[in-house]
Amino acid sequence: MRVLVIGTGGTIASAKTERGYKAQLGIDEILEMSGIERHDGLIIDCWDLLNVDSTLIQPEDWIKIGKAVFESIHDYDGIVITHGTDTLAYTSSALSFMLRNVPVPVVLTGSMLPITEPNSDAPGNLKTAIKFAMDGIPGIYVAFRSKIMLGTRVSKVNSLGLNAFQSINYPDVAYLKGDKIIFRRKISFSGETVFDPALDPEVAYLRLTPGLSPETFLAVERTVHGIVLEGYGAGGIPYRGRNLLEAVSVAAKKKPVVMTSQALYGGVDLTRYEVGRRALEAGVIPAGDMTKEATLTKLMWALGHTRNVEEIREIMRRNVAMELSTELF
Amino acid sequence: MRVLVIGTGGTIASAKTERGYKAQLGIDEILEMSGIERHDGLIIDCWDLLNVDSTLIQPEDWIKIGKAVFESIHDYDGIVITHGTDTLAYTSSALSFMLRNVPVPVVLTGSMLPITEPNSDAPGNLKTAIKFAMDGIPGIYVAFRSKIMLGTRVSKVNSLGLNAFQSINYPDVAYLKGDKIIFRRKISFSGETVFDPALDPEVAYLRLTPGLSPETFLAVERTVHGIVLEGYGAGGIPYRGRNLLEAVSVAAKKKPVVMTSQALYGGVDLTRYEVGRRALEAGVIPAGDMTKEATLTKLMWALGHTRNVEEIREIMRRNVAMELSTELF
Repeated sequence: MRVLVIGTGGTIASAKTERGYKAQLGIDEILEMSGIERHDGLIIDCWDLLNVDSTLIQPEDWIKIGKAVFESIHDYDGIVITHGTDTLAYTSSALSFMLRNVPVPVVLTGSMLPITEPNSDAPGNLKTAIKFAMDGIPGIYVAFRSKIMLGTRVSKVNSLGLNAFQSINYPDVAYLKGDKIIFRRKISFSGETVFDPALDPEVAYLRLTPGLSPETFLAVERTVHGIVLEGYGAGGIPYRGRNLLEAVSVAAKKKPVVMTSQALYGGVDLTRYEVGRRALEAGVIPAGDMTKEATLTKLMWALGHTRNVEEIREIMRRNVAMELSTELF
Repeated sequence: MRVLVIGTGGTIASAKTERGYKAQLGIDEILEMSGIERHDGLIIDCWDLLNVDSTLIQPEDWIKIGKAVFESIHDYDGIVITHGTDTLAYTSSALSFMLRNVPVPVVLTGSMLPITEPNSDAPGNLKTAIKFAMDGIPGIYVAFRSKIMLGTRVSKVNSLGLNAFQSINYPDVAYLKGDKIIFRRKISFSGETVFDPALDPEVAYLRLTPGLSPETFLAVERTVHGIVLEGYGAGGIPYRGRNLLEAVSVAAKKKPVVMTSQALYGGVDLTRYEVGRRALEAGVIPAGDMTKEATLTKLMWALGHTRNVEEIREIMRRNVAMELSTELF
């Protein structure tokens, strides 16, 4: 059995410096410090691809990571990617759109405490990830705190606690109990493995807040090819006092304006309220129950393939990598 | 015993129309449909101040609501404000900064299902709010799903479920069990009641996402007097590939740039990682464990008092209305 561990940095690779934690360690050191043994013919190869705090990860890095996975995928029974937690959910989402129908498990993991600290969660998370890479099912996942979650469904929900990730609007796929993987949902991706990394990073993500002016929205719009607007609750655009709806309506004719929800759970439904219907009529594309991270990366990926607003609307409403519970109409 | 119920609209006041739910009902109708009886010398006065979907609520409305509360507060034993859930947490936060040391309970509530629907949560939420307005403790609170939460600590976390609000990084203050209020935390605000509504709505809230360009950040910056930048995890600004840190550093000399966390729980701590230290050195103001809604409204309120960045930094780090667990340094 052969597993590849690709390192990209993050807290899991960090050590204390005089200026706070900083990514420094290589994958070989991390595996050794985690007490992971290569027993019974288990071969673990290491690849130090990057070594950065994941705050610094850029869309171009997703392509680099995706390429590394795609080039190696037929030589291994599973691949683990260690990554900082801050943008891990963006990377797992982006990889899921770029890299479809992988033939083996690809499991991202990281840790909240550096491996150099006592009681670090790094060894446990790594063991879960490697176990699932060996014995799990094909697909792109995140392993954290004994849970295996779908790559397009995770969000970091806690900046302090060790149980930092949750699967949003979708159940955990599996969890590790002792040495056993207990499945809660069997995923099946079929078809040829595709690496389709066309990606346009020119997307901004703006939160709708009371008082947001049409001027600010349009200033953002002019600098990007697409906007994610994070609405309230089920979604809607204000038009009272400040007429944001009019500005969105003008922008949405030229560029995709996708609406997500500020609420962590539940997603948007623009048909439920009058303010939502008006947003739909203005051309807003609903994100349904996608995570914020999946919405952003899917829009970048859609824009990598077309700048046509109607084609992007069609891509966004279609379930590409299990990021959507129901295809949208 | 006298309670005032101020209506502002929202789902709780909604009825079905051909174009989805729309705010329509007055407070008197809502009370009647909720089966709330004025017994034993309980006088409930009604004031239909606004009747809008809370997506449409603007900062100027917070002042209008605050003024209504301030003008009535000495005539009642408690005040209830019904409000749409979408921006309820913004209103409760803004009121908490504007209206300090209220002598009686001021309780915001709303519902996820219109009162006209069977199994609506409106009657239960209203009863909880009125009960706490009668027998609770002074302060500004949100009542939802039998819970009483501090106005500066709530966020809407679910766009679908009835348990839509959570108290973030702070325990619930109380809950209703049958007809009894069980306290989990006794809050005490002391001092003269102050209505201090100076507020500058020219604030934008931008999510930090991989690939966010300095150009987009600066385009936003030019249209507002202050920015909330929603960082990852514990906080930090990227400078690799795209040098956002440099743009933030330039902006933060002229205007406040406040950093919150995308993670719902845990808040920011810019001293923990090197990327955070660099953000601090660039002049970024940390939001600590404040909610996103409290951070935005506190920044608007701070800007209403001064445009001086150092004075705003001082206001933001100070605990004004229990929005911060620890004063920041």
